[in-house]
Amino acid sequence: MRLASRLDNLGTETAFAVAAAAADWKSRGNEVFPFHLGDLDFPLADHIVEAMNSAIADGKTGYCPGPGIPELRAALAEDIGSRRGMTFGPEHVTVMTGGKPVITKFLQAVMNPGDEVLYPNPGFPIYESQIEYLGGVGKAYRYLPTDDGFAIDLDQVRDAITDRTVAIIYNDLQNPISAESTDAEREAIAALAQEHDLWVLSDEAYFEMRYEGGSTSIASLPGMAERTCILYTFSKKFAMTGSRLGCAVAPTELGRVFSTMNTNDESCTTHYVQWAGIAALQGTQQPVADMLDTLRGRRDAACEIVNSTPGMSVETPRSTFYLFPDVTEAIGLVGADGLADFAQQALHATGVSFCTRNHFGRPQPGEDRSYIRFAYSGLSEDKIRRGLGDLRDWIGSHA
Amino acid sequence: MRLASRLDNLGTETAFAVAAAAADWKSRGNEVFPFHLGDLDFPLADHIVEAMNSAIADGKTGYCPGPGIPELRAALAEDIGSRRGMTFGPEHVTVMTGGKPVITKFLQAVMNPGDEVLYPNPGFPIYESQIEYLGGVGKAYRYLPTDDGFAIDLDQVRDAITDRTVAIIYNDLQNPISAESTDAEREAIAALAQEHDLWVLSDEAYFEMRYEGGSTSIASLPGMAERTCILYTFSKKFAMTGSRLGCAVAPTELGRVFSTMNTNDESCTTHYVQWAGIAALQGTQQPVADMLDTLRGRRDAACEIVNSTPGMSVETPRSTFYLFPDVTEAIGLVGADGLADFAQQALHATGVSFCTRNHFGRPQPGEDRSYIRFAYSGLSEDKIRRGLGDLRDWIGSHA
Ligand SMILES: Cc1ncc(COP(=O)(O)O)c(C=O)c1O
Ligand SMILES: Cc1ncc(COP(=O)(O)O)c(C=O)c1O
Repeated sequence: MRLASRLDNLGTETAFAVAAAAADWKSRGNEVFPFHLGDLDFPLADHIVEAMNSAIADGKTGYCPGPGIPELRAALAEDIGSRRGMTFGPEHVTVMTGGKPVITKFLQAVMNPGDEVLYPNPGFPIYESQIEYLGGVGKAYRYLPTDDGFAIDLDQVRDAITDRTVAIIYNDLQNPISAESTDAEREAIAALAQEHDLWVLSDEAYFEMRYEGGSTSIASLPGMAERTCILYTFSKKFAMTGSRLGCAVAPTELGRVFSTMNTNDESCTTHYVQWAGIAALQGTQQPVADMLDTLRGRRDAACEIVNSTPGMSVETPRSTFYLFPDVTEAIGLVGADGLADFAQQALHATGVSFCTRNHFGRPQPGEDRSYIRFAYSGLSEDKIRRGLGDLRDWIGSHA
Repeated sequence: MRLASRLDNLGTETAFAVAAAAADWKSRGNEVFPFHLGDLDFPLADHIVEAMNSAIADGKTGYCPGPGIPELRAALAEDIGSRRGMTFGPEHVTVMTGGKPVITKFLQAVMNPGDEVLYPNPGFPIYESQIEYLGGVGKAYRYLPTDDGFAIDLDQVRDAITDRTVAIIYNDLQNPISAESTDAEREAIAALAQEHDLWVLSDEAYFEMRYEGGSTSIASLPGMAERTCILYTFSKKFAMTGSRLGCAVAPTELGRVFSTMNTNDESCTTHYVQWAGIAALQGTQQPVADMLDTLRGRRDAACEIVNSTPGMSVETPRSTFYLFPDVTEAIGLVGADGLADFAQQALHATGVSFCTRNHFGRPQPGEDRSYIRFAYSGLSEDKIRRGLGDLRDWIGSHA
């Protein structure tokens, strides 16, 4: 039977192949250290589960409004606004089944086939996949290493803008790089968006996943609220990845479109999970603080070992739960034939499983350094120390 | 800011306007009888809630596989297959956030822009909306009244097929009509699909919502499994509309595509709700039987009153929870100016709120009878008797 041609342009998260290789290695009786997964091993907080059960007992089990229940939209408007120094109303909020759906719905709403959209690369792989699936032209922009992490190549962004450019995807507190904008960098992106009349998708999945300092939303800069769609998610902050709860915060003309898309695509987001979301936002924030403390410990352990591994180095990120070390020399030491071979050798020698730069968008021309991504959110500090320690020893044995 | 042109073709469920009018009337202090909503007023069964909580306690709160957890895919393959006299494996099942997402994902997978898709009209409004949104050409087919309900106008289906036709949407046990195919009708649709090499989307949302007789899936007819995608949902059978759980059962080449779409669009369906789904399928079926008994009582009460209302008549449906009475004469009696005016007058005179034929796709040329839809799934038998009784008295006062 014939399938539609649009499927030729549908990409995916190729990290699933890494997960499959890790599962295979484990099934053959080996210990595996799963640094490839951007998931969290923290339980759903009790007060969140209780709120869900109260909602169920209270009959909140039927269809509910496409853009979300009014109570959650109001709670999100208040929480997201106040943390960004902005004022939102429920009409700006469209609840979705996670943060990810905001990507496809935003692109469907603002991009015609043939239009160009700027996106970070390396970056969350669904940007590239959905731009191309929906008939757009993805214009990748890169990050350059600095003394203090990474910075967006603003010249490349500027040069990439044409008459056909309609939007830029911007992921401050970045996956996989853990890059964080300076105020100047954020303002430069905002200025370009205004100069060229671009929509901005501000992916703020990690806005509150930070260990020091404070976050700023590009939406809060002058002239930006009316052209910015914020991707918000409960996934990371509340360890609710499997609950599938997030939202778009956007100008009302976009919100109306998102709401109609929800009605078409899935009717609504799970009713009682929305009540759980209200409890997450308004209940005790102690589990969030405790989780961030634990993650900070894991980050420090991981950074210390990575930076004492021959041929590997990384700056200590102030946010997210990823490390993106430069492993160019380590690859040379073990004599691996590129990133994929390095990852496979590492898995078989040490059980350490990770994604590489190649899982975050098609590599750009001229890349001469090699990077991998460690997600330290799903392993105990003990496992982190053992796994990365073994990796250090293995590479060290070649040095 | 500019929005994309594809939005010009995005329809919606216009029934939301009916819900808004009902809510407004209620907020002004009036009793409202909500016959417009295809939702159920039955609680989530205890064993289903318990399974969800066990899953949460057991840490099933993280991301899970895009096509669904293996245990649920296997349980669905077994249950759906055995009830249809077919054999499915987990590889045929893609879990989704309800049955509705199957519609857009199926159309994205099989229909190119410009391709034609046959769909029932009156029918579930999302068919028409998504065909047109995705750039296809919707070819509506009608139902004709018979002595025993309604039958598909097979001549119209046959005449509508062209070289560009790629699929037919078929909703045996039909919303809003409550029509049910004879074996001959189902076989005729299957024969046309094979003769013209069409994909079939078999919307089986009401497969087990029946009061007598048994259901047959078009997928089980010879030569049909390889061209049919079944839309399955937990929404109606288990009163889980707000849980958002359903699946597609389809040939593996389609299943692979659906799985990639899930990864792009929403990562996965809420993890612990999938475990609740296993309990729904494999636990006690007593709540289902009890609910069907209650619904049968409501159906009988509603049919009796409708058929004793001047200018209204309906056959007793053997399935679904809708009545689709012909109200042509009743409209004349009260002197209403068409369906919308009839609905508004009825709401204001009696508090009875309902959808009309016009909420289920654009009317076709030559329609000379007027129909409305009563959903009796969300009101007690007592409220049904009072509401429809008042409606009868109001119409009767004009007779
Ligand atoms: C940058 C970024 N954006 C969005 C998401 C989407 O997460 P979710 O759909 O669980 O909210 C993720 C998840 O890993 C992410 O890393
Ligand atoms: C014919 C038909 N198909 C599909 C659906 C989708 O239901 P859900 O998305 O809740 O599974 C409905 C719901 O009313 C329906 O009536």
